[in-house]
Amino acid sequence: MKHLLIAILLFTYQMAGAQTSVEKVRQYRSLHEGDMLKEYFELLSIPNHALDKVNIDKNAFFIESMLKKRGIQTKLLQSNTKESPKVVYGEVIVPGATQTIIFYAHYDGQPVSPEKWHPSIKPYEPILLDKSIEKSGKAIAFPTNGKHFDSEWRISCRSSSDDKAGVMTIINAYDALVKSGVKLKNNIKFFFEGEEEIGSLHLGEILDKHKDLLKADLWLIGDGPVHQSGLAMIDFGVRGDVNVDLTVYGPKRPLHSGHYGNWAPNPCLLMSKLLASMKDDEGTVMIKGYYDDVIPFTASEKKAFNAIPSVDIQMKKELGINKPEGGGKTLFETYEWPSLNINGIKCADVEDHASNIITTMSTATLDLRQVLGTDYLKQIELLKQHVIEQGFLLLDRDPTDEERQVNPKIAKLKIVKGGYNAQRTPLDLPISKQVIKAVKSATNNQLLLEPTSGGSLPLYLFEKHLNAKVINLCLVNHDNNQHSENENVRLQNLWDSIDQLASIMIMD
Amino acid sequence: MKHLLIAILLFTYQMAGAQTSVEKVRQYRSLHEGDMLKEYFELLSIPNHALDKVNIDKNAFFIESMLKKRGIQTKLLQSNTKESPKVVYGEVIVPGATQTIIFYAHYDGQPVSPEKWHPSIKPYEPILLDKSIEKSGKAIAFPTNGKHFDSEWRISCRSSSDDKAGVMTIINAYDALVKSGVKLKNNIKFFFEGEEEIGSLHLGEILDKHKDLLKADLWLIGDGPVHQSGLAMIDFGVRGDVNVDLTVYGPKRPLHSGHYGNWAPNPCLLMSKLLASMKDDEGTVMIKGYYDDVIPFTASEKKAFNAIPSVDIQMKKELGINKPEGGGKTLFETYEWPSLNINGIKCADVEDHASNIITTMSTATLDLRQVLGTDYLKQIELLKQHVIEQGFLLLDRDPTDEERQVNPKIAKLKIVKGGYNAQRTPLDLPISKQVIKAVKSATNNQLLLEPTSGGSLPLYLFEKHLNAKVINLCLVNHDNNQHSENENVRLQNLWDSIDQLASIMIMD
Repeated sequence: MKHLLIAILLFTYQMAGAQTSVEKVRQYRSLHEGDMLKEYFELLSIPNHALDKVNIDKNAFFIESMLKKRGIQTKLLQSNTKESPKVVYGEVIVPGATQTIIFYAHYDGQPVSPEKWHPSIKPYEPILLDKSIEKSGKAIAFPTNGKHFDSEWRISCRSSSDDKAGVMTIINAYDALVKSGVKLKNNIKFFFEGEEEIGSLHLGEILDKHKDLLKADLWLIGDGPVHQSGLAMIDFGVRGDVNVDLTVYGPKRPLHSGHYGNWAPNPCLLMSKLLASMKDDEGTVMIKGYYDDVIPFTASEKKAFNAIPSVDIQMKKELGINKPEGGGKTLFETYEWPSLNINGIKCADVEDHASNIITTMSTATLDLRQVLGTDYLKQIELLKQHVIEQGFLLLDRDPTDEERQVNPKIAKLKIVKGGYNAQRTPLDLPISKQVIKAVKSATNNQLLLEPTSGGSLPLYLFEKHLNAKVINLCLVNHDNNQHSENENVRLQNLWDSIDQLASIMIMD
Repeated sequence: MKHLLIAILLFTYQMAGAQTSVEKVRQYRSLHEGDMLKEYFELLSIPNHALDKVNIDKNAFFIESMLKKRGIQTKLLQSNTKESPKVVYGEVIVPGATQTIIFYAHYDGQPVSPEKWHPSIKPYEPILLDKSIEKSGKAIAFPTNGKHFDSEWRISCRSSSDDKAGVMTIINAYDALVKSGVKLKNNIKFFFEGEEEIGSLHLGEILDKHKDLLKADLWLIGDGPVHQSGLAMIDFGVRGDVNVDLTVYGPKRPLHSGHYGNWAPNPCLLMSKLLASMKDDEGTVMIKGYYDDVIPFTASEKKAFNAIPSVDIQMKKELGINKPEGGGKTLFETYEWPSLNINGIKCADVEDHASNIITTMSTATLDLRQVLGTDYLKQIELLKQHVIEQGFLLLDRDPTDEERQVNPKIAKLKIVKGGYNAQRTPLDLPISKQVIKAVKSATNNQLLLEPTSGGSLPLYLFEKHLNAKVINLCLVNHDNNQHSENENVRLQNLWDSIDQLASIMIMD
């Protein structure tokens, strides 16, 4: 039945004249969805935390084999110390091509807490759902023998969206072009990184080491969610980010809360007061100077943002939020400002695991998003100054007994490796216009242009080490639970991304 | 060698005249330490969380066998619904006795988080240490063939202090009296409870059901730490306690902190601000009316407290605390006031497990200690009112979508079952004086009298259901890590407790 439909469509196209390249890609994909997804499930089932050296290697080898299977020349790039996950590199040199585009995605994922995932989903065992788990999605058996895949179905698994979806769609976009006989016009290179989620610690070094190999007119990043309306979107910038771990100290050993409650300082309370002091009730950061270095959006950036449909009403409803932070700013307007977000707080245990104690320490992990103008190291200095102003002795290690004797409050701040600053590419560069035109051709002109994403990627590294232009194509559904439990991707987003990436590959 | 020493001691005593009963008990114990500890290790190795029904039963049967082995008549008491852990009851009726004393201890323990314990200690595998783990104690092989047990050694294991130490010392005190031929004067009953750490939910019902069996002139509780100086101590009261779980809500699903950071309310911050509002920097509770119902210490209670050596300087040093809460009050003075303690806070994950997200909810567990005059249910009402005054819609369940749409801040408060009020027994009752005299006889008059402990036991139940007098003998070292990781007991504290309990058993 499905093949008959395709045949009718094909006939219709032929009657109407030659198929466009995108149509050819779409047709090829629709006939090969099962094979593509079978291979994707194999890739997703390999655990991919960047520090899990054995599995991260397995991912690299599997992706290399995906490239080789498609006749692409490959190479595994590594840092000098060989401590980093391997970059899977591939290249297709097209005779006569005058432009080179490198397609970037990352194959590593955020850590998982399996107990938080829905009981029917294991983080590294991809399954098909008929809809998202939040909408009570049920598992679907993987269709065989050419049976139909509903494009609203979801795949749930760690990195199904972020960012093995990038690897999957980039490779299949290329494959679909070649298999459906579309002539390539640009040199195509592939660059799949394996440590993005821990801060791309060796990326700069690898870019330096392979400067010549990695020269390109454009780095095209495939990552992140499209607009909440479902419309296609290109990001021309990202916020920077850095994580810090902040610890405060109570008694040296845990105490019975009866014998010492009311007397021994409780680190849960100390941490609460410290964190509470950092932001006001509107979410404005109260750290002195935190907004001083912000370079505001330009008029043209504001204009581009204004052309993007507002999502605030939809998102408030969808997320169950009555009053957002930001004192009345729209979601997009808040991207202009650096953020201070609490990732999590750990202080002893709660509920069934709670004991009646005063514990010894509490740790919070924060992430500080950067915007154009702010420097992540300077922002951390401001944070440190704030902690000190709250009456803490601030250390970069645990306190000694002597320090405990003379200081009422002690904190430790540790910068998690891999912080970086924001990056933006102007929307009106010729290469920007080329990309916009290509993606529009795959989306009936339904395309949103975002001057900067709220999210972060270490894109400044490409500018810094290669003087490259960087543009990010958004790939996945916005409700993908990226970074947390029950991550998922909607199939139609994979199919759309393949169309759009293929269009960029043959842009002129 | 050891036996020779004992023989010399024995000879010395005989030269000096007849041994006192306590001396006989001490001598018997010193000759049987190995057997006592072997049996104690067996008891400790049975996991004992009250909700672990299989193992909690095993504990009850083991303790019953300990009593039977010593010729004591036993009975297992249970609530009507049979849902509660069994109370192990035993009795020794002494012809001509005019007083009955019931000795109470509890054999259940706090939950354990094995990953927090020192790598060399498993929570339910008792080991001997040459000193506490905080002082870098090392494991000691269990001495065999009558070899010496250093009385400074520690046993580390869940409930080694709280409160299987009570079970062990009560049974062995009785045993030592009988085996060394001391004539009993009082009827002795044993009452070992198995759900104290979850709030003694069925204790009242069991007391009612067995009113006649449990009539006594004194309930003698064996539980809790002696004075920080190491001196023996009797508590004539306890604070009450109740736990609540408090939850605040963020977005309905976890969000990427880049795409929504600065906009979506973060429950980690909401929780921090809420907890921070509850106490000032001195630790004074800011909840309106929280101290209104307090019945202050009487002049004689204050006098008794003043006779207890201050531990504040020692404890500040030992615990690494520069400035306690309480605005200058001594540790003991703070027992006059109800407390509000944060047991723990849970909000997503930190450090290596952190993700750059805004999570969906945060929960804190609090414990509210009660003093004479305060009622735990009323104090919870005051807490609820405070939460509402901070702008929260307060529920006893998760919010609906409709409630989320119209309320900027939502919290849930759940009272953990088993709260209870404070209890105090006057120091100058005849039965109090009898106990004081008996314990003094075992401690060279080195005895401290504490009008109330800072800790809690549901002693008001004995008053309420049986109209009984209740006095608590402190048993274990103060640095026992009760309720938390690396719990331990010092051997000399077990030996001292056996002496003191035996003296009470034969008091007149």
